[in-house]
Amino acid sequence: MRDKIIESILNNKEEFISGEELSKKLGISRAGVWKHIKILKQQGYNIESVNKRGYRLSEKPDDLLTYKNICHELDNEFVGSKIVHFDTIESTNDYAKTIANESQEGTIIISEEQTKGKGRLGRQWHSKASEGIWMSMILKPEIMPYKAPFITLIAGASIVSALNKLGVNTSIKWPNDIIINNKKVAGILTELSAEIERINYIVLGIGINVKIMEFPQEILDIATSLYKEEYKISRVDIVRSIISEFEKLYLDYIKNDSKEKTLEICRKHSVLIGKKIYVLQGDNKELVKCLDINDKGNLIVEDQNRSKREIMSGEVSIRGVKGYV
Amino acid sequence: MRDKIIESILNNKEEFISGEELSKKLGISRAGVWKHIKILKQQGYNIESVNKRGYRLSEKPDDLLTYKNICHELDNEFVGSKIVHFDTIESTNDYAKTIANESQEGTIIISEEQTKGKGRLGRQWHSKASEGIWMSMILKPEIMPYKAPFITLIAGASIVSALNKLGVNTSIKWPNDIIINNKKVAGILTELSAEIERINYIVLGIGINVKIMEFPQEILDIATSLYKEEYKISRVDIVRSIISEFEKLYLDYIKNDSKEKTLEICRKHSVLIGKKIYVLQGDNKELVKCLDINDKGNLIVEDQNRSKREIMSGEVSIRGVKGYV
Repeated sequence: MRDKIIESILNNKEEFISGEELSKKLGISRAGVWKHIKILKQQGYNIESVNKRGYRLSEKPDDLLTYKNICHELDNEFVGSKIVHFDTIESTNDYAKTIANESQEGTIIISEEQTKGKGRLGRQWHSKASEGIWMSMILKPEIMPYKAPFITLIAGASIVSALNKLGVNTSIKWPNDIIINNKKVAGILTELSAEIERINYIVLGIGINVKIMEFPQEILDIATSLYKEEYKISRVDIVRSIISEFEKLYLDYIKNDSKEKTLEICRKHSVLIGKKIYVLQGDNKELVKCLDINDKGNLIVEDQNRSKREIMSGEVSIRGVKGYV
Repeated sequence: MRDKIIESILNNKEEFISGEELSKKLGISRAGVWKHIKILKQQGYNIESVNKRGYRLSEKPDDLLTYKNICHELDNEFVGSKIVHFDTIESTNDYAKTIANESQEGTIIISEEQTKGKGRLGRQWHSKASEGIWMSMILKPEIMPYKAPFITLIAGASIVSALNKLGVNTSIKWPNDIIINNKKVAGILTELSAEIERINYIVLGIGINVKIMEFPQEILDIATSLYKEEYKISRVDIVRSIISEFEKLYLDYIKNDSKEKTLEICRKHSVLIGKKIYVLQGDNKELVKCLDINDKGNLIVEDQNRSKREIMSGEVSIRGVKGYV
């Protein structure tokens, strides 16, 4: 019933809907409507109630990343077909992995807070309550496992494309960091479960710093958030935009084997192409020039002997490179 | 304490060890020794007790694939460093995946029976109690995920090499079936959990039909067992031999990036090289000639237009090919 009430209010957009109308529409008493509204408010919906006019959402309910809020009138085929929303969880990626085998493709896990958020290589990811978007998507593409890494690039292209459409100027540090003003605002953690010739599932984790204003000392110089960069955008709008962009690029890749659009976005918004960068492998650190991202999605670099080679992944760093702006 | 008793008996090989000696050695009463022996017998150890002479194992305790039996005096660095033994379990691969993150590399799960044994692509694998070897190995190689498929070839080479040393003439149907007399006697199911540039873990499942004499009608023509082919070998000896062969070839690959020995075994014992085979992909079935296994471990085939190409995996079939012996 509360689902129906919030849907009616959402459908009414910025107009008021009267208690009487809701009561008729849903076949419950006005007192019943009021009770449900009270609970919705407790759940975080910012519902205005004005005497004789009725109810409306006084602002976009961007503090609650629920299925209703995210998928309302969204035209997606399968990404977001189910959204599991938590107030708090250890890690959305870890949770997604426990339900992945039984879940349908496109299921999304979102938590307001992660207590053990993970970055790449098991690193910690700070995921404060309601201050970011901490989500994981379950994918089951019928492709060979060696084609899975490209999905990280699709995710990066989707985030950049979504944020740019919302007026935020972002770039991609290949393969999985999203950058504003030389600082990381979002990251992608792709995890794969596979047999040799078949993918069981992919869990695609996305973390976006939205409202965080204060970062721990050790990442102060390298991390930022949308709010800190003066972009005050609703979390719901961001998620809606990302999953809509993602589905298009993902289907292009899976159904049509087309990488073109993703590569175009990754190249256009790359912070690495044309720069001198370090390639870090184990304890080695080598200064190279980044030339391009090739059709496979790998980085093409030129070393100091002018010989070119392909970097499949591993760390690349732009910190401390002389002449780097 | 029972571990110590069985170790003393194993150390004594085919000689008797007296109750008195055991009692002194372990600092417990002779009645205590006797109690433990009774329980060991219930667990499946075939311990002879002869008045005035003492105890000995009357035959190789090959019906119990425990750590003690398998690893006694085995000279392995890490494969088999821990063995978890079950009487029955749904699937050793599935169980291994649940403990893999917290387990040390080389941990082995063995079950006398699997109630939901899995083959490739989610197919069923018949795993009757005590009639085969149903085991899974947890590996954590520090290599890039795209290098993981080669580990299936290492496993295949280890099984063939181990069985051949025990006098069984077997071949490999690339990439993951072991064949005797044109029938499948063993299979490998490699499952991978990975980030884009790092392997979390690999679960290497090995299923070997040892004593099965009767197969279901639908696989009667394509499956066999060692006993059915008149090879009566102890299961413990097989496991010991496989994990010893495997560790050598695996370390060669992981530490020295050397595939030579594995490829040599895979080529020498291949049932595909030189044959006409079907390559099945989706609904397509194409007759090609198999030329070789290349250095990457992939199959090189020549199609009917004489153009050569590399098969990374997918189904290959030799059934129904005209002229196939």
